[in-house]
Amino acid sequence: MNSPALSPSPLLTDLYELTMLQAYRACGMNDTAVFELFVRALPPERNFLLAAGLEQVVEYLLALRFPADDLDWLASTGRFDAGFLDSLRDFRFTGDVDAMPEGTLAFADEPLLRVTAPLREAQFVETRLLNLVHLQTLVASKAARCVLAAAGRPLIDFGLRRAHGAEAGLLSARASYLAGFAGTSAVEAARRFAVPVFGTMAHSFVQAHDDESTAFADFARAQPQNTTLLIDTYDTARAAHKVVALAQSGVAVQGVRIDSGDLGAHAREVRRILDQGGLTQARILASGNLDEHRIDALVSGDAPIDAFGVGTRMNVSADAPFLDCAYKMVEYGGRPRRKRSEGKASWPGRKQVYRRTGSDGALAGDLLALDGEDAPGVPLLEPVLRAGARVAAAPALDALRDRAQAQMAMLPAALRTLGRATPYPVTVSPSLRALAAKVDAQTQACA
Amino acid sequence: MNSPALSPSPLLTDLYELTMLQAYRACGMNDTAVFELFVRALPPERNFLLAAGLEQVVEYLLALRFPADDLDWLASTGRFDAGFLDSLRDFRFTGDVDAMPEGTLAFADEPLLRVTAPLREAQFVETRLLNLVHLQTLVASKAARCVLAAAGRPLIDFGLRRAHGAEAGLLSARASYLAGFAGTSAVEAARRFAVPVFGTMAHSFVQAHDDESTAFADFARAQPQNTTLLIDTYDTARAAHKVVALAQSGVAVQGVRIDSGDLGAHAREVRRILDQGGLTQARILASGNLDEHRIDALVSGDAPIDAFGVGTRMNVSADAPFLDCAYKMVEYGGRPRRKRSEGKASWPGRKQVYRRTGSDGALAGDLLALDGEDAPGVPLLEPVLRAGARVAAAPALDALRDRAQAQMAMLPAALRTLGRATPYPVTVSPSLRALAAKVDAQTQACA
Repeated sequence: MNSPALSPSPLLTDLYELTMLQAYRACGMNDTAVFELFVRALPPERNFLLAAGLEQVVEYLLALRFPADDLDWLASTGRFDAGFLDSLRDFRFTGDVDAMPEGTLAFADEPLLRVTAPLREAQFVETRLLNLVHLQTLVASKAARCVLAAAGRPLIDFGLRRAHGAEAGLLSARASYLAGFAGTSAVEAARRFAVPVFGTMAHSFVQAHDDESTAFADFARAQPQNTTLLIDTYDTARAAHKVVALAQSGVAVQGVRIDSGDLGAHAREVRRILDQGGLTQARILASGNLDEHRIDALVSGDAPIDAFGVGTRMNVSADAPFLDCAYKMVEYGGRPRRKRSEGKASWPGRKQVYRRTGSDGALAGDLLALDGEDAPGVPLLEPVLRAGARVAAAPALDALRDRAQAQMAMLPAALRTLGRATPYPVTVSPSLRALAAKVDAQTQACA
Repeated sequence: MNSPALSPSPLLTDLYELTMLQAYRACGMNDTAVFELFVRALPPERNFLLAAGLEQVVEYLLALRFPADDLDWLASTGRFDAGFLDSLRDFRFTGDVDAMPEGTLAFADEPLLRVTAPLREAQFVETRLLNLVHLQTLVASKAARCVLAAAGRPLIDFGLRRAHGAEAGLLSARASYLAGFAGTSAVEAARRFAVPVFGTMAHSFVQAHDDESTAFADFARAQPQNTTLLIDTYDTARAAHKVVALAQSGVAVQGVRIDSGDLGAHAREVRRILDQGGLTQARILASGNLDEHRIDALVSGDAPIDAFGVGTRMNVSADAPFLDCAYKMVEYGGRPRRKRSEGKASWPGRKQVYRRTGSDGALAGDLLALDGEDAPGVPLLEPVLRAGARVAAAPALDALRDRAQAQMAMLPAALRTLGRATPYPVTVSPSLRALAAKVDAQTQACA
């Protein structure tokens, strides 16, 4: 499914991408460059990442153009020479992309994505590629933890209102669905990505009525096939009795939502009231400040909650709201490259991740190696674009979601815990270490 | 300046806004409703908020329409009746908005914004209004702390790549500029909001060259009026000597950027090298994992840093990545309303915030009172829209930025600290307390 609004102006970039392009052009540099996008270190709160955002990267690269309006505006800034701006008229992404499919488990230092393209193309796309992969990998990785905690109970993304802007709301709906959520409240995400959409009612609906019972009846009659009544506006238990009375009057009620207070205790009391009233089929949805830890506590405590609405803390990945990701040059003009900045050194050369699994199917260790090395395990980066064109049709989001579930089933038990686990072993191949030493020696000789 | 891409489809909303509208229509409810948007409690890491995002709210409300495509898609879901969807064809925002101007200091429980409109309009806009005000208030409040810490040294937003999506990148550039940043690296934010734009160079520019000196020379020649050279790719001190050599060869160099390691120590060493080489005018820009605490440490330690590039931790408000904000009905059909959900009760009735200042000009205490109450202090909520139209032209962003600076100058000393201060006093007026008790009594009688 296309998402035109997610392919904004190429000016959604850092100024230095453009000034560097102008400088590269001025000194005639445009050989093949290779950049890799990776996360330097996992946040302490994460034992694994779930790669996501690749499809939006592909759409961005395929659509990359400088409209005349954008070039006119750049000209108006006085920062760029006419020849350079003219060269942008035909600017396209003509390179290759290799990447982990979305829904792949990933760890520190592993390239999620590799771009091989003429230097100016490979450089220019840095900002938006990071912006897209960072957000969705961040959210999918957080949502995956909620999915583990929920132990099979459905989760619904309720976080659009406090997601960081429109695109964050839409892409976090997509990323959380990919990670195993059942759907979202965000209507536009349903339209754009075919994510299932869910909704209940707000407190204001109850407040606007002079009494709660009338509010419930009005809502149930207007939504007969889809009635989840919000019962915590005034007094949760009393509201549950009103729901029973409404159902006994012949109005269909599919479920209730509890959004405040001790969700486990309320759920137990409400379950008892509903069951005693004959509403054994009515489902209880809980929401309000939930994250994986609170879900885990409710599930572990056997709270009779059938589904969870999870908003803000998932959408903004509240305990780890960013990943230390980077997009770094690893080769130019056929020569491997690396930076050695303190605490931020990167591995040189085109790399591949080889993953081994144990006899039980669980992940047994990854090897970070040079691309093409004869190494044991399954290579994780796959061809995505060649010469600026897709090598295969865009995958369906549901297929990516299935992949994510299959991947999460391969998590070793230690990594499934919500607490901090011993890091998953990612080994660097001897060839790669040797190359790094060689590159360092060359750079020092030149410097 | 208009920002059309920030007025996305009305389907950027929670499903329940639409299902509630259908139910309100079915039961004929559309009297005047009043909703207020406020933050329930400040994060422990915040002593004040800086209100922001109002201009995008206004643009959203003025542009609110249901395009035919959107209605067709809603019809295709089978969730809505034809009469309801038909009623959305003429759906417009015709109500009033009162709000704190952007750049106003705000505290817990204080309405940042009040909507007075026919129920369906006032209800429908909930999700997007929260989404817009939340993000910019969040970021402006974080950025303001960086501005306090920088003590007059310029700050530049570098965070687009790890902001949560495109809109977060653009709006955090706007919000941080409003809070006192000098500008941003995000080109599209410069175009859209006329925020000053800045850029240096990336490590990849150095890496692509076989030696660092050539890279510096190539970049400086291509950007003669605007050369900030990144000097930490390999060895910061050696790179500083190369910058000196380049300048001594007659190439203009305006400054250098240090992006890793001990920024204070590197800055001192680099300053010494530059000064000894005669580059006393060359400025040092520091970046890399900065936030208000690290800036404060560098400034307190008299590090010779002329400007700071601040990215991720500011853009995502890393230590407090969300605000507990809500948009709650306070009146319907002329009757005050409140919810009493545990831990989430809200104050009923149309409210105003009255602010007193001391003889030194510093804030001396706020009163949360009923709108129109005869109270001491300056009322903070001002008319913005009347009957769906602006009461005044859109303010210039620079005027809002000036306002923010004037407001921050009024912060009591205790609130200017980066640590946790005693909360600023916000008192609830006796009339408001009496109204809450009265509303509760009525609700209980009805319930």
